[in-house]
Amino acid sequence: TNIQRCPPPYSKTNLKSLFRLIIQDNVKKMAEESHRQDSAYLLIFIMLLTLTILTIWLFKHRRFRFLHETGLAMIYGLLVGVILRFGIHVPQSTSDVVLECAVNASPATLLVNVSGRFYEYTLKGEVSRGKDHQVQDDEMLRKVTFDPEVFFNILLPPIIFHAGYSLKRRHFFRNIGSILTYAFMGTVISSNLLVVVGQLGGDFFFTDCLFFGAIVSATDPVTVLAIFNELKVDVDLYALLFGESVLNDAVAIVLSSSIVAYQPTGDNSHSFEAMAVLKSFGIFLGVFSGSFALGMATGVMTALISFYFTKLRDFPLLETGLFFLMSWSTFLLAEACGMTGVVAVLFCGMTQAHYTYNNLSRDSQDRTKQLFELLNFLAENFIFSYMGLTLFSFQSHVFNPMFIIGAFLAVFLGRAANIYPLSFLLNLGRRNKIGMNFQHVMMFAGLRGAMTFALSIRDTATYARQMMFSTTLLIVFFTVWICGGGTTPMLSIYVTFAISFRVGVDSDQEHSVSN
Amino acid sequence: TNIQRCPPPYSKTNLKSLFRLIIQDNVKKMAEESHRQDSAYLLIFIMLLTLTILTIWLFKHRRFRFLHETGLAMIYGLLVGVILRFGIHVPQSTSDVVLECAVNASPATLLVNVSGRFYEYTLKGEVSRGKDHQVQDDEMLRKVTFDPEVFFNILLPPIIFHAGYSLKRRHFFRNIGSILTYAFMGTVISSNLLVVVGQLGGDFFFTDCLFFGAIVSATDPVTVLAIFNELKVDVDLYALLFGESVLNDAVAIVLSSSIVAYQPTGDNSHSFEAMAVLKSFGIFLGVFSGSFALGMATGVMTALISFYFTKLRDFPLLETGLFFLMSWSTFLLAEACGMTGVVAVLFCGMTQAHYTYNNLSRDSQDRTKQLFELLNFLAENFIFSYMGLTLFSFQSHVFNPMFIIGAFLAVFLGRAANIYPLSFLLNLGRRNKIGMNFQHVMMFAGLRGAMTFALSIRDTATYARQMMFSTTLLIVFFTVWICGGGTTPMLSIYVTFAISFRVGVDSDQEHSVSN
Repeated sequence: TNIQRCPPPYSKTNLKSLFRLIIQDNVKKMAEESHRQDSAYLLIFIMLLTLTILTIWLFKHRRFRFLHETGLAMIYGLLVGVILRFGIHVPQSTSDVVLECAVNASPATLLVNVSGRFYEYTLKGEVSRGKDHQVQDDEMLRKVTFDPEVFFNILLPPIIFHAGYSLKRRHFFRNIGSILTYAFMGTVISSNLLVVVGQLGGDFFFTDCLFFGAIVSATDPVTVLAIFNELKVDVDLYALLFGESVLNDAVAIVLSSSIVAYQPTGDNSHSFEAMAVLKSFGIFLGVFSGSFALGMATGVMTALISFYFTKLRDFPLLETGLFFLMSWSTFLLAEACGMTGVVAVLFCGMTQAHYTYNNLSRDSQDRTKQLFELLNFLAENFIFSYMGLTLFSFQSHVFNPMFIIGAFLAVFLGRAANIYPLSFLLNLGRRNKIGMNFQHVMMFAGLRGAMTFALSIRDTATYARQMMFSTTLLIVFFTVWICGGGTTPMLSIYVTFAISFRVGVDSDQEHSVSN
Repeated sequence: TNIQRCPPPYSKTNLKSLFRLIIQDNVKKMAEESHRQDSAYLLIFIMLLTLTILTIWLFKHRRFRFLHETGLAMIYGLLVGVILRFGIHVPQSTSDVVLECAVNASPATLLVNVSGRFYEYTLKGEVSRGKDHQVQDDEMLRKVTFDPEVFFNILLPPIIFHAGYSLKRRHFFRNIGSILTYAFMGTVISSNLLVVVGQLGGDFFFTDCLFFGAIVSATDPVTVLAIFNELKVDVDLYALLFGESVLNDAVAIVLSSSIVAYQPTGDNSHSFEAMAVLKSFGIFLGVFSGSFALGMATGVMTALISFYFTKLRDFPLLETGLFFLMSWSTFLLAEACGMTGVVAVLFCGMTQAHYTYNNLSRDSQDRTKQLFELLNFLAENFIFSYMGLTLFSFQSHVFNPMFIIGAFLAVFLGRAANIYPLSFLLNLGRRNKIGMNFQHVMMFAGLRGAMTFALSIRDTATYARQMMFSTTLLIVFFTVWICGGGTTPMLSIYVTFAISFRVGVDSDQEHSVSN
């Protein structure tokens, strides 16, 4: 016959190599099985998003505005979470052999010696335990749980960049003083108020309380943007609200990370020390201004490139690619330097919109706008549907009624203690006064969203953090559904009575990125 | 003072919990350090891409066409690889504590018990060893090595989808017979020829040889597309070449995976058996037609949705989002069902272009076209620059001169044995004959690219596979630089003499996706 036959390999150590091959086949099969399951779980999310889009369209078509698309995504996520939790019981599959090897440190990388071959394992995170301190092994729930860093490093950046890129800059800079006041002072005020709530939770460190205050203070620009865009509110007031919610995200993230940085230096006492707080404040200022400078720098660099290489305009694809890569590298650069990528990306987006945008070709202007709009839309709805899912799929929820009630009170009191006194002070110096009605709207529109969620899910190792996470989730649900759903009708009432509240002003008369 | 102090937690087991906290802090710090490094390494790639884009623009601007952009990306990757390999020596960082625990299987998930807390580790892959069978611990090189599945599951789908979406369908279907002949018969012919080469390599199984043949037979549509688009060759001949290179990717991937599926059933003898080959062929047909049907099905479904929900046109963002998600779900669905996602995505792209595209609003048509164009551009250049890098960063290269020479010969003989006889047979039935000159061009333009690379890096566990990987890399380098660089001048010569070769025909007179 004309059949070729290759000689068998490793003739000297034939048995051993065959043994190895069998093991390899095993590993490969398990990896394949696991890959298949991962695909299936990701598919669930894609289907969820598809469903959300179709329903959003239906809502928009029928002009049904009581529920925002993010609220809808959460409801769908919730339903799938219930089904996964209570509906389906999958037998333990072979792909998930669990080994226990007791070691006394948990390194980032683990090399495992399997009969002479080395396999690399990377740390995914801590596994939650049930009440009997056994590892809960509900595989399906564990599989639909994403690495928290995915939210932080992949899904948040496009959202924040889009917020910066679509900011109405003229109105933003005209109100920069007020916006900064709200964003900085407001966040500090409401996070301080939340320290009191920490007492209710019981098992809390002082820094934990501060941390909770910081993450819960970040209001979400997303829903505000959506609702106000449709209603065409007075642009200055809109810029105020939107600018505040974009910037306080940045404040909250840097504040929370400088609190975490302060924690280990507390010498295990975790008590309040003036020096340590000053140090924390120093870190805050350093990281914030560093990220700010970095974001500005790459933005300006992109602008310069697009300015000097004017012939780049003939190739919109290259131009868009360059724009995208430079913006992304801002994030990576900041993270590599120990700064905060999300903050850098925000200011990069603002700089790109201000300088680079005008250098781009007409085609690239549309492309970049549409690209980031789409990325933002997908990332946002993904986060919100995951939020809904996680209420049932997360396995270490700690619901403490006292703490929850306290947190809700503190959140609203904190918002009030932020808006009303600061508005009063700002009105002393403003020509275009912030009306009382608009203050109510600002108070009411302080939704908590993607950033709050991403910050709270980032670390759920301790009991206190788990309690914070569960409470945060409830706060987000409440504000998005109740406040978010109520803002449109509330605004409509204002419109009807038209009390000192200019609605219907055309929001875009400048040559701007946002449409 | 008015300083709040939260009570210390876990008062009963205070010491133990403090110990835990310290460990946690450690883990957190290590994770942070590792995250920072990852950002830095990803930043290298982003910078590389940025540099590539700027240089491409320069080349295009100066009408310098001897080097295609993908070839350029490879050169930059190569340079960085050399620098990383020989230039920089980074001291072993603390983030990478290596533990060895001897176990007798290597599961997909590992739970590690660190003083009572459980940490989850996921299998990243096998670690290469040096000649003295010690684990080589050049951390930097290991870090810039991506998980091969990233190429397969994240970077390839947009490239392949784009190829399907931008196919000139009228000309494609007019020549479908010839295209299928080239794609199927050609791949089989050249992969069979490569079995002979296996003898030269020595340590090869029969299936290894077949596998090598399958992966090396896939020609790359990318460069062909780029060069021929600029020169405006006769559309039918262009469709022939492009259609072949798109389809033989699909053939190669299914062929190689059905060969792998056949391997473990070979009862360790790995010899040639007629039954096993038939079975392999059955798997091939099943997987290919299954993926084909799946891709068509989701494509048609999207078309139906966009047809019945015509009001969706008022919201281009939702429409584009839906389009993107449905196309992505094709991939995930296929993978979850054990089919081949890449193949499904190819046919999905073709179906979307044929049916859905015409239902979309004008705005969404532009958006989807531009989105996939950008994704394709970025993914492609990323793969090619990684290819350059990997020549120096991959640590288990096996360069066997005999095998390399044999493989090069076989690749070109295989291409010749594919093009010339099949063209002769096809010309018997064709009205628009395939000229001898065009056959030479087809022969010459058979570049190997992203698909070949992704298939060969997917599994580099055995000695034979490592040898294949190194050889494949050289083949890709050679064809992209020499053949890719030479195609334009070669075509120009043909143009000058204008021998039976219609160049300058306007390639797009139909209402088509491709521009």
